[in-house]
Amino acid sequence: MKINSKLIEEAVDQFALLPGVGRKTALRFVLHMLKKDHDDVNRFARAITDLRSQIKYCSTCFNLADTELCNVCSNPNRQHNLICVVEDIRDIMAIESTQQFQGVYHVLGGLISPMDGIGPSDLRIEELVQRVSQLQEAEIVMALNTTMEGDTTCYFLYKKLKNLNVTLTTLARGVAIGDDLEYTDEVTLGRSIRNRTPYESTLSAS
Amino acid sequence: MKINSKLIEEAVDQFALLPGVGRKTALRFVLHMLKKDHDDVNRFARAITDLRSQIKYCSTCFNLADTELCNVCSNPNRQHNLICVVEDIRDIMAIESTQQFQGVYHVLGGLISPMDGIGPSDLRIEELVQRVSQLQEAEIVMALNTTMEGDTTCYFLYKKLKNLNVTLTTLARGVAIGDDLEYTDEVTLGRSIRNRTPYESTLSAS
Repeated sequence: MKINSKLIEEAVDQFALLPGVGRKTALRFVLHMLKKDHDDVNRFARAITDLRSQIKYCSTCFNLADTELCNVCSNPNRQHNLICVVEDIRDIMAIESTQQFQGVYHVLGGLISPMDGIGPSDLRIEELVQRVSQLQEAEIVMALNTTMEGDTTCYFLYKKLKNLNVTLTTLARGVAIGDDLEYTDEVTLGRSIRNRTPYESTLSAS
Repeated sequence: MKINSKLIEEAVDQFALLPGVGRKTALRFVLHMLKKDHDDVNRFARAITDLRSQIKYCSTCFNLADTELCNVCSNPNRQHNLICVVEDIRDIMAIESTQQFQGVYHVLGGLISPMDGIGPSDLRIEELVQRVSQLQEAEIVMALNTTMEGDTTCYFLYKKLKNLNVTLTTLARGVAIGDDLEYTDEVTLGRSIRNRTPYESTLSAS
């Protein structure tokens, strides 16, 4: 694809840096931008620069926030000794939209991954240990993905936290609601049989 | 999906205005932006605002350009009496990348579409007539899509231009190279039989 204009070329290059956007899609975005008013384009650009320059990290949980404390940490109705450890803020959004969690969060900012050169010191693990050690007692829910990296990180957290006065839990793993037993992978099905739950508890949950 | 930050909300809203981008993809873009340097984000924003404020339309063919004349129109090696009429600049890029066309272009800026309220006066048809009438003789290649709107626009152009000293042509339609005859639609196959070409001409073309 030949682009004759340097201005278009530069804008396409910039859009093509976005994840999952190739040069054809980037060009589509650019032509869309050219059809919009000057004001709309300026508003778009301002939203992005404002975002980058004004966004803060919550000083307690490292969630993204407009203020010093995010609105989960500043909410007195949340249980502040029930801490859900997540990889990034998308996980917070996913859990928040279930409306089933009354505690607070701690964002690690990644997972331990030696292959990518990410060690424990690159994550906010020390901050979590500090935070937990100030509480009388706490429950830590490790809501990390069940990948090699997630499991490694869980184990590292377990080692770090087990001597403190905390209960460590993880998300329940099992057959997803609506899934067909026949097509469920063996690891999940095996684990869901081993960790079977009393039928009565499922009645009260719904 | 619950977003707690107004800054993120606004940036997601803006990204979600892009064609084919929903709120989940927009959030992915936003989180990507947050991982970048301030400088990178500013360069991104500047590329877009510069694009909108500095881009010009070529005064002859209405191609997008950085200067008064686009680099096709200002190229003395191109045939200026061979004009390819296209819907928008993406078509120019597609034709240019074939490197098979030595003429110049004329961008209509759309197609006649009464359903969308686009009439001939909304397109740059009058400018084309003006431009053609100043030439001694010319060939006009109508490279428009074979949709209802494209065909209508072709016919309108034919009516407008037929009394001038021009040859009107359209793109050759036929079975695409690599396509299976069995799966080609009847209209295309029928037309490609009616408009069959001498075998020798295909030898020289390749």
